[in-house]
Amino acid sequence: MTTTLQDCRALDARDPLRPLRDLFTLPEGVIYLDGNSLGPLPRAAPERVAKAVREEWGQGLIRSWNTAGWYELPRRLGDRIGALVGAGAGETVATDSTSINLFKVLSAALSITAADAPSRRVIVSERSNFPTDLYIAEGLCRERGLELRLVDAEELPAAVDERTAVLMLTHVNYRTGAMHDMAAVTRAAHAAGALVVWDLAHSAGAVEVDLRGADADFAIGCGYKYLNGGPGAPAFAWVHPRHADRFWQPLSGWWSHAAPFAFTHDYQPAAGIARYLCGTQPILSMTALECGLDTLHAADRFGGMQALRRKSLALTDLFIALVEERCAGHGLGLATPREHARRGSQVCLTRDTGAYAIVQALIARGVIGDFRAGRPDILRFGFTPLYVGFEDTWHAVEHLRQVLAEEEWQRPEFNQQHAVT
Amino acid sequence: MTTTLQDCRALDARDPLRPLRDLFTLPEGVIYLDGNSLGPLPRAAPERVAKAVREEWGQGLIRSWNTAGWYELPRRLGDRIGALVGAGAGETVATDSTSINLFKVLSAALSITAADAPSRRVIVSERSNFPTDLYIAEGLCRERGLELRLVDAEELPAAVDERTAVLMLTHVNYRTGAMHDMAAVTRAAHAAGALVVWDLAHSAGAVEVDLRGADADFAIGCGYKYLNGGPGAPAFAWVHPRHADRFWQPLSGWWSHAAPFAFTHDYQPAAGIARYLCGTQPILSMTALECGLDTLHAADRFGGMQALRRKSLALTDLFIALVEERCAGHGLGLATPREHARRGSQVCLTRDTGAYAIVQALIARGVIGDFRAGRPDILRFGFTPLYVGFEDTWHAVEHLRQVLAEEEWQRPEFNQQHAVT
Repeated sequence: MTTTLQDCRALDARDPLRPLRDLFTLPEGVIYLDGNSLGPLPRAAPERVAKAVREEWGQGLIRSWNTAGWYELPRRLGDRIGALVGAGAGETVATDSTSINLFKVLSAALSITAADAPSRRVIVSERSNFPTDLYIAEGLCRERGLELRLVDAEELPAAVDERTAVLMLTHVNYRTGAMHDMAAVTRAAHAAGALVVWDLAHSAGAVEVDLRGADADFAIGCGYKYLNGGPGAPAFAWVHPRHADRFWQPLSGWWSHAAPFAFTHDYQPAAGIARYLCGTQPILSMTALECGLDTLHAADRFGGMQALRRKSLALTDLFIALVEERCAGHGLGLATPREHARRGSQVCLTRDTGAYAIVQALIARGVIGDFRAGRPDILRFGFTPLYVGFEDTWHAVEHLRQVLAEEEWQRPEFNQQHAVT
Repeated sequence: MTTTLQDCRALDARDPLRPLRDLFTLPEGVIYLDGNSLGPLPRAAPERVAKAVREEWGQGLIRSWNTAGWYELPRRLGDRIGALVGAGAGETVATDSTSINLFKVLSAALSITAADAPSRRVIVSERSNFPTDLYIAEGLCRERGLELRLVDAEELPAAVDERTAVLMLTHVNYRTGAMHDMAAVTRAAHAAGALVVWDLAHSAGAVEVDLRGADADFAIGCGYKYLNGGPGAPAFAWVHPRHADRFWQPLSGWWSHAAPFAFTHDYQPAAGIARYLCGTQPILSMTALECGLDTLHAADRFGGMQALRRKSLALTDLFIALVEERCAGHGLGLATPREHARRGSQVCLTRDTGAYAIVQALIARGVIGDFRAGRPDILRFGFTPLYVGFEDTWHAVEHLRQVLAEEEWQRPEFNQQHAVT
């Protein structure tokens, strides 16, 4: 039985999360399936950021470090993120960029292994991990004379052995949307004696994550994707309490000092997660991040991440079904796992040719997804249950059908590649 | 001959830079002498940041990486900063925090020395350097098995010898306002075979700096002090072109890759200064930074940094003279050099007791400076010629006189220390 537009409207009508859509300002005529790259604008953000600019900065000036709570922001927002990913209170900080936080936690993990098991000198990761994660790992390996071993997902966990210091994985793959079983992978890595660092860039706010339940060691993630924190919003870092006090990371700036206002010239790391802070944080961007976190916590009274996850799977199921029903014969493949337990909150389609142009033609029609080059090329569509509806999903597929059926994507204007897509 | 309030008003009346004050929104009744800690709000910033929030983020969404020029911001703003500190085009990036940028350039400098002169295994710095700089240096020394040697200013440059890899100095001392002769110190360090890293946190936008003229090797600095970029604004990094392509730094994130959108899994650093970028930057805070840079470049048509420096010295001369004329007998000392060539854009007073409470009493009166604990304790007053006038300076000293003469600072409410001041 095929799904109709009416069916989709009925699904929206009985969706308990539907009111959350009003928490966002979305451009007229846009179906936004790129919240996995940059979350949209929370409706509350313009006023809140304006207040930070005019009142906190403009009127409070330097006094706002105390009076507006700037100093507490990294830990306060960290806790609000932690609550979305199964962290305990006081275990997470919002700060710096994802890449820099990965450097910190990977440094800390390697220091632990260097002390406890110095013969373990390999970082294992997935060949298709997000490139910047691999660059950071490559950099640390170069600094410390270690080896970075890249394998395919199916070679895990066998690749984790007595030489492995750290297994570093992204929970949900950025290209395919495939999701690891965090608890099972962590358990296997621990059994092999390795520590595990998880990148939650495509998980936090998108799927249920239980860092403490999975007994993970370290995690980092992104503030501007599913957390809706605004362009380049500060990222986050989490460390299991069993490691937090034990080791040091080399980005040892003033904000991680045990007594940051004593201005002593020797470094004494703060207790716990605060030692993963470094320099002064961008307060205006941090303020916008809080508005993004508000949108996620607004779902708490509707069932929180569990309810968001349920709707996300319904949306991605629907998208896959509609593409297969309505776009058959146009050479599209599915890169994303069908199995719920292995799927993140995105659907990635493949096509031998034209993937870039098809994405451009869709964007011109107001359906914003993105393109990721590779073998194969990927058409990537992120589904954020906070604001994407079932009717949106119908229309997105209908636009895709028309772009393909009418060969609209062959037009020259859709085939000029820009620097950034 | 003593200076009168009328004299100060006359100085303001004939100050060619006076109109620049209107570029800022300052709170009613405040004399702001803390722009060396956090610059005030540029009048253009609320609207510009609101546009970035509502239009670039809200309407442009992910497309704004191209259409709003987000991707170019670190290099574009870097060039605008570079023009204020004697850098050539394409040599500076605005990115990350001061501490993190110091880590990058110090790493690069140490890598150069490790290759060229491996027996040089000491970083030399000043004991009274800004603590976070020392923490970062301490961290890198620990990572690489090097030694951090701290000396007093008068022991320089004799402390730089055949064991020195890098001399790391802050150009203007945060506690005293004392300024190094950048060209002379750099020349002496080079003669001894060492590289020089300059922290311009209290120099950029405050005093004339000529990085190329001084033949410096590396520099970093702050976006939120004299550059008026807003709370926690991104910092900057500069590298002399002779080093930029040569070496690598370990914070090797996607934005420093030679082909950041090719998503290759091996790291190839970009040519030049771009390799000092790392992860995604906080765009809203970066947007505010540009408004801050606009205020400095607005001085270009009045003589630029040279004219700002001239007024800054006139203001600090006046402040010192007025304090000595009008606050004599109250136990104040002067920590800042009288000699123009050795003075930054701040005046630091000392007092054996009560410095904290005096600063609090002044703040309660609307004269915002800050307190820095130490031996001796410091009352610190920053003078930013863009918005501070001669009459302001008069009134600031008059408030100080009253606070001292009436022992107002002894009130209990001025003697309760907060976490952040």
